[in-house]
Amino acid sequence: MSETTRNRSLDTHAGTAQADVEERLIENVLQSFEDCQDPRLKDVMQSLVKHLHAFILDVRLTEAEWNKAIEFLTAVGHITDDRRQEFILLSDVLGASMQTINVNNAAYKDATEATVFGPFFVDDAPEIPIGGDIAGGAPGEPCWVEGSVRDTEGNPVPGARIEVWEADEDGFYDVQYTDDRVSGRAHLFSDSNGNYSFWGLTPTPYPIPHDGPVGKMLESVGRSPMRASHLHFMVTAPGLRSLVTHIFVEDDELLKYDTVFGVKQSLIKDFQKQPHEMQTPDGRMLDGQTWSKARFDIVLAPGAVNGKV
Amino acid sequence: MSETTRNRSLDTHAGTAQADVEERLIENVLQSFEDCQDPRLKDVMQSLVKHLHAFILDVRLTEAEWNKAIEFLTAVGHITDDRRQEFILLSDVLGASMQTINVNNAAYKDATEATVFGPFFVDDAPEIPIGGDIAGGAPGEPCWVEGSVRDTEGNPVPGARIEVWEADEDGFYDVQYTDDRVSGRAHLFSDSNGNYSFWGLTPTPYPIPHDGPVGKMLESVGRSPMRASHLHFMVTAPGLRSLVTHIFVEDDELLKYDTVFGVKQSLIKDFQKQPHEMQTPDGRMLDGQTWSKARFDIVLAPGAVNGKV
Repeated sequence: MSETTRNRSLDTHAGTAQADVEERLIENVLQSFEDCQDPRLKDVMQSLVKHLHAFILDVRLTEAEWNKAIEFLTAVGHITDDRRQEFILLSDVLGASMQTINVNNAAYKDATEATVFGPFFVDDAPEIPIGGDIAGGAPGEPCWVEGSVRDTEGNPVPGARIEVWEADEDGFYDVQYTDDRVSGRAHLFSDSNGNYSFWGLTPTPYPIPHDGPVGKMLESVGRSPMRASHLHFMVTAPGLRSLVTHIFVEDDELLKYDTVFGVKQSLIKDFQKQPHEMQTPDGRMLDGQTWSKARFDIVLAPGAVNGKV
Repeated sequence: MSETTRNRSLDTHAGTAQADVEERLIENVLQSFEDCQDPRLKDVMQSLVKHLHAFILDVRLTEAEWNKAIEFLTAVGHITDDRRQEFILLSDVLGASMQTINVNNAAYKDATEATVFGPFFVDDAPEIPIGGDIAGGAPGEPCWVEGSVRDTEGNPVPGARIEVWEADEDGFYDVQYTDDRVSGRAHLFSDSNGNYSFWGLTPTPYPIPHDGPVGKMLESVGRSPMRASHLHFMVTAPGLRSLVTHIFVEDDELLKYDTVFGVKQSLIKDFQKQPHEMQTPDGRMLDGQTWSKARFDIVLAPGAVNGKV
């Protein structure tokens, strides 16, 4: 046996021993979840272990990188509070949020597509009447939004709860200010014919909060923190599948790169620019101010339709 | 075509469309890292994305589960501070720490095996002389530890820096107390012959901190939070591979289940019980107190040996 052959053979032997050590550890960790009484939790944890270890072995993670990961997660934890949710941002920019949405909102007939929830929803936004104003003083171009809510059989859905929220023209949600303002968010209910309308702001593009660890990560990998212009909706009605989605603005340059991967073709809407001398749908003149108008007809899937089709 | 056949065919079509949506998202997320200028960071992030998405798709993660995960990570972040590192605990109990150790400390000749670092190391532990006492008032049975440090050619390594740390007999490290005590930790240097010795405490089993989210997780999956009795070492010397390891106590019942998967056969040592009337290796009588004695000969791999063999 030549020196080279012997060395290669020793290497292979060492490599196999190393692979055994790595494989045995995975088996031990999986085994530790065997007594879990909740079968679903057991499946989820065991799958998490498999994929986590596969990642570590795939990249041969260094100890310095492991340390960086611990530091990164610690920083994400420390910046997170009642008003800022950096873990959701992290999930969003890795596409994990959007993939979870995909899994749980499989296409069903013509039901409206879902997209990411984002970190800026607030539970107790004020109620407005049909045609009311969600802006609450937030700066921006007024935008009239109207549409209908129906089910996939075409029946109108009266009394659907419609939560809407959006950033102001400076790119900030109310919760990103420190003065406890409530603006750019509200909820309303569809009328007896399933129709709704409200005044909001013409959506403008903005960066996700990028002064924290997630922003730093995006910068270090050469990614933009920008999101395409959008307006958030969450629509719920008894017996129907809840819908969390956005509408996006046609012709927005950022439609091709949205840092949370939320854009879907069916959610891109024409926000028609209106001259200031045009009377508004609710019969007013907005003196000297342009405004826009968009239509979003919402179709809710049956409540039983979830997960896989 | 029968009704059943047609339905199945529709299902398959819907299933394929759904799979396309899921696959396309993964491609988009991978694509977003293409401009990363650091090739290693790009590889790591793209691999992370692949495995994270594979996990979500594998278990078909529900939105409620995603919410739970965000809440869990938030809680892990909030309990983490300068004295408590819940992210390291999480990595430990999932075996991720041990797998990273495996990857970076491949077996090399008779070099001492590495194990988990744990969350309780402190950078500025006091220096003690050879034969000194690390206990610093921590309660527990005295334990004399001695051994040598050498390289894989058998040469003694003088001046190696040896960090040692351990829990007291109540199962707590100094940093788990609120009174800023420094006890059960120190560093010393091997002598001109590469030998070392110190007084510590006979290691006793203890639970990892389990009053936080990681402890709750272990409880909900039916896992014990206990660690096998051990004494931590970190040994560094110029030109040699740094070693982070423990020694474990022979006959400890917990050797077969250590909640962080740190046990390795080669690290199990005989801690010999000594009657109180036995003179200590440094020529003293510990009146009325039993003590123990352990030997740990440390072998450091060459510094160039890291990662894969």
